[in-house]
Amino acid sequence: MPPASSLHRGHPARTTSPPAPVLVLQKYGGSSVADLDRIRACARRCLGVAREGHQLVVIVSAMAGETNRLIALANALVEPGNAGGPSRGPYVAAARRDTAHARELDQLVATGETVSASMLAMAIGDAGGRAVSLAGHQLGMKTDRNFTRARITHIDHERIQHELHEGRVVVCAGFQGIDEAGDVNTLGRGGSDTSAVAFAAAMQADVCEILTDVDGVFTTDPRIVSHARKIDRISYEEMLELSALGAKVLHSRSVELAMKHRIPVHVRSSLHERPGTFIVPEEPSMEDVVVSAVALDRNEAKVTLTAVPDVPGTVAALFQQLGAAGIVVDMIIQNAAHDGHTDVTFTVPEAELARAETLLADIELPEGARPRAILTDPAICKVSVVGVGMRSHAGVAAKTFHLLADEGINIQMVSTSEIKISVVVSERYGELALRCLHDGFGLQHGPARS
Amino acid sequence: MPPASSLHRGHPARTTSPPAPVLVLQKYGGSSVADLDRIRACARRCLGVAREGHQLVVIVSAMAGETNRLIALANALVEPGNAGGPSRGPYVAAARRDTAHARELDQLVATGETVSASMLAMAIGDAGGRAVSLAGHQLGMKTDRNFTRARITHIDHERIQHELHEGRVVVCAGFQGIDEAGDVNTLGRGGSDTSAVAFAAAMQADVCEILTDVDGVFTTDPRIVSHARKIDRISYEEMLELSALGAKVLHSRSVELAMKHRIPVHVRSSLHERPGTFIVPEEPSMEDVVVSAVALDRNEAKVTLTAVPDVPGTVAALFQQLGAAGIVVDMIIQNAAHDGHTDVTFTVPEAELARAETLLADIELPEGARPRAILTDPAICKVSVVGVGMRSHAGVAAKTFHLLADEGINIQMVSTSEIKISVVVSERYGELALRCLHDGFGLQHGPARS
Repeated sequence: MPPASSLHRGHPARTTSPPAPVLVLQKYGGSSVADLDRIRACARRCLGVAREGHQLVVIVSAMAGETNRLIALANALVEPGNAGGPSRGPYVAAARRDTAHARELDQLVATGETVSASMLAMAIGDAGGRAVSLAGHQLGMKTDRNFTRARITHIDHERIQHELHEGRVVVCAGFQGIDEAGDVNTLGRGGSDTSAVAFAAAMQADVCEILTDVDGVFTTDPRIVSHARKIDRISYEEMLELSALGAKVLHSRSVELAMKHRIPVHVRSSLHERPGTFIVPEEPSMEDVVVSAVALDRNEAKVTLTAVPDVPGTVAALFQQLGAAGIVVDMIIQNAAHDGHTDVTFTVPEAELARAETLLADIELPEGARPRAILTDPAICKVSVVGVGMRSHAGVAAKTFHLLADEGINIQMVSTSEIKISVVVSERYGELALRCLHDGFGLQHGPARS
Repeated sequence: MPPASSLHRGHPARTTSPPAPVLVLQKYGGSSVADLDRIRACARRCLGVAREGHQLVVIVSAMAGETNRLIALANALVEPGNAGGPSRGPYVAAARRDTAHARELDQLVATGETVSASMLAMAIGDAGGRAVSLAGHQLGMKTDRNFTRARITHIDHERIQHELHEGRVVVCAGFQGIDEAGDVNTLGRGGSDTSAVAFAAAMQADVCEILTDVDGVFTTDPRIVSHARKIDRISYEEMLELSALGAKVLHSRSVELAMKHRIPVHVRSSLHERPGTFIVPEEPSMEDVVVSAVALDRNEAKVTLTAVPDVPGTVAALFQQLGAAGIVVDMIIQNAAHDGHTDVTFTVPEAELARAETLLADIELPEGARPRAILTDPAICKVSVVGVGMRSHAGVAAKTFHLLADEGINIQMVSTSEIKISVVVSERYGELALRCLHDGFGLQHGPARS
C-alpha cells in the first residue's frame, strides 16, 4: 500500500492531519497497461488508493500497440499488404474523406480501450478489490459525431457516481464517447488524456493524475540533455507551449481543457510513488522564473518562396491552398518588399514537405504573380525557450541569440510569443543548441530566477 | 454477383418470376471471417445480395480464435502462465462463481464480435456498398443480465430498420446484447447462431441463412464416412437431436428458437453458392424417411455403481450431487433390483469424469446405503440413429441391433427417444458402427424410405 502521502492535490496548501477521503481520478497510458504484469501493477496501485478510503475513477488507454494493430487491420483489409502505419494507410485516408468509413474506424479502434478497461477491472477484482469497467456507451461521455476527432459535448456521470457509491473502482475506457445516435466517437490524438481531464472537471475530482512511463515534465528532453531536471510545478500556458513543441507527456488539447476548468493535473510515473510535475494555474512566484524549459522539434522543414510579386492576395492564396490541404504552417517570415518583390519563408511538418511542394508548384496564379522559385530544406530544426517570466523580463531573446552565437550557431528564422522564443537552426546543430540554451539559462540548477 | 436464385426461402413453393425484394438475414461464423481474405469474400457475397435489391441484416461471430485469445488473456491475467483453454482456466472459473468477474469477462469477449462486425462493414464499404456495423449497445437485443449465458428478453429493431431504410447493409455483432443497466451480456455457446435466429424471428425475415465452412448437414460425419450425403431438408426435431449429439453445424439452442418461431433456417457454405440444408417444420413426406442421419459422440464416459442398496432416495441423492456440480448426466440405466441391490450405469461428458468420480466417492450417505463400487470407463462412445419416421415405423431398433451384431459389435447401453436410438459401444468400434449403420440404412443412396 502506498504511503498516505502518495496523493497530492496540486494546491499549495499543506496539512499534517491524515488525508480526508477525496475523489481521485487517475489516467493510465498505453505503456502503463502494455502487458499483463503492468496491468497487475496498475491494479495494485488502484487498490492502494481505494484502501485509503478514497473514491477512484480510472481512465485507461489501449494496451500499447493495440490501437495501431487495429488500424493496421483496417488498412490491410482494404489494401492487402499495406498496413500503412498508424496515421496513414488507405483506410485511414478513406476515413478522412468519408463519414461511413470514419464511423467504422471509431467502432473498431474503441475496442482497444474497452479491452484494457475490462482487463484492469479484472485485475483489481482478482487482487481482492471491487471494480467495474465502463465502455463508451456506459460511461456517460456525449460527443458531437465528429468521428475520429470528436469534441465532448456533455458528461453525464450518473452511472459512475452510482458505481462509486457502491464502493467500486470505476475503470473507464478512455478516448471514446457516444453521440446522440448511440454511435461510438473517438476523440483523436491525446484522447485519453482529454477524457481524463474532462471527467476530472465534470466530477470536480480533488486529484487528477496522469500516470505514464516518465517521471514528469522535464526542463528538456533527458535523452539529449542527461542532466535535464524534472519540473515540480509548471503553468498551463507553459505546458501548452511545450505540448505544441512536441513534448509527448501530455497532449495540448487536454492541457487546454485543464486550463479552462482550472483543474490541477499531476503528471507522474506509474512505476513509483514519487511526485511528478503539477500543471497548475499560474502562480505569482512563477513570474520570477524567466525560463522554465527548452525544447527541440526536429520534425519541421523550411520552404522559401523567392521573389514573390508583391501583389495583394498572392501570399494569402498560397497559404489558403496549404490550409485547404490540411497542411499546418508554423513559423512564417516575410521580408519587406523591394523592387516589388518579397521573399516568404515558412515551416511545415517534415512529413508534409513533398505534398506542400507539389501543391505550391501546381497552384494557379495570374501570370506575373508567381514566385521565382520554391526552395525547400528538410535539414532544419526548431529550438524553443519557454517561460511565463518572459512577459515581465526583457533580455531573454538577446540572451538566447548570444548563447547560440557563442557556439557559432547560425539562426535562420525567429518567432516569438508572449512566453516563448523559437529559432530555426540547421538540423546538425539542434542538440548543441538545446544543450547550450538549457545550461545557459541555468535550468540544471533549479528554476532560473531573475 | 451471385445468380438471382442464390437465395432460397425454405418454403416448398417455387416460382419462375424474378425474386421480389425480401428481408435477408445471414450469419457468418468465425471461420467465415477468420482472416482478411475471408472477410473480403463475405463482403462480396453481402454486396451480391444487396445489389439484387434485397434488405440484408448480417450477424457475425468473432474472427476464428479471437474469443479464445481474449479468454486466455483474462486467465493469464489472474494466473500467469495459465491460459487454461477457452472454457476452463482460473478467470473463467472465477466468473462462474462471481457476477462481477462474469460481467468483466462479457465486456471483454464481446469486443471480438464488435471488431469483426466493423471489419465486415468496412470491407463492404470498400467494395462500393453501404454498410453500418452495430455493437451490443446499438443493435437492440435486450438480455436478462445472466452474464456469460444470458437469455434474450426482447428485441427492439428500430435502429436496424432505420439503417435498412437508409439503404445500408446492417452488420450486427453476434453473441451479445445489453441488459437494463446497459451492461454487455453474452449469450453463451452457440450465441451468434442464437442471435441470428432471434433477429430473423423478431424481424420476420424472409430468409435466414447460417453461412459456415461446411456444405450443410450431412447424413453423418464426412470425415468418418466419406460417402456421407448432404441432407436437403431436415426437421427441427431431427436437427435438435443431431445438435445434442455433437453435430457442430448449429447449436441446439438456436434450433429450439427456430422451431418455436417456425423460422426456416438454411445452413450453407460461405465458400460457394450451392444450396445447403434447410431446417424446417416437419413436412408430411418426412415421415416416409425412416432414418435421416447417424451420429457418433466420442466425448462420453461410462460410470457404473455396483450393488447400490435399493433404498428410496439413494439414487436420487447421487444424481442430485452431480447436477449441483453442473455435471450433465446423459444416458441412465438401472437394472431391476435383486437381493435388495441394483446396478446403476450412466454416462457423463468424458472431460467431467474425474470430477464426477470424486464427487460420488465423497458423497455422504447413511451406512448401508453406499454402492459397493464405482467403476468408470472412458473408452466408450455413443452411436445414434435419428429420424422422424421412427415414430410411425417399427423395427428400427431391431434393425440397428442386427446391423451391429453382424459386425460383432457388443452393445453396452441403449436409450431411445421418439425419433432417436442411441447405443453405447466400445470406443474402438465407434467408426465401424457408424459406417455399418449409415450404409445399413442406405443413407448414401438418398433418403431411406419405408
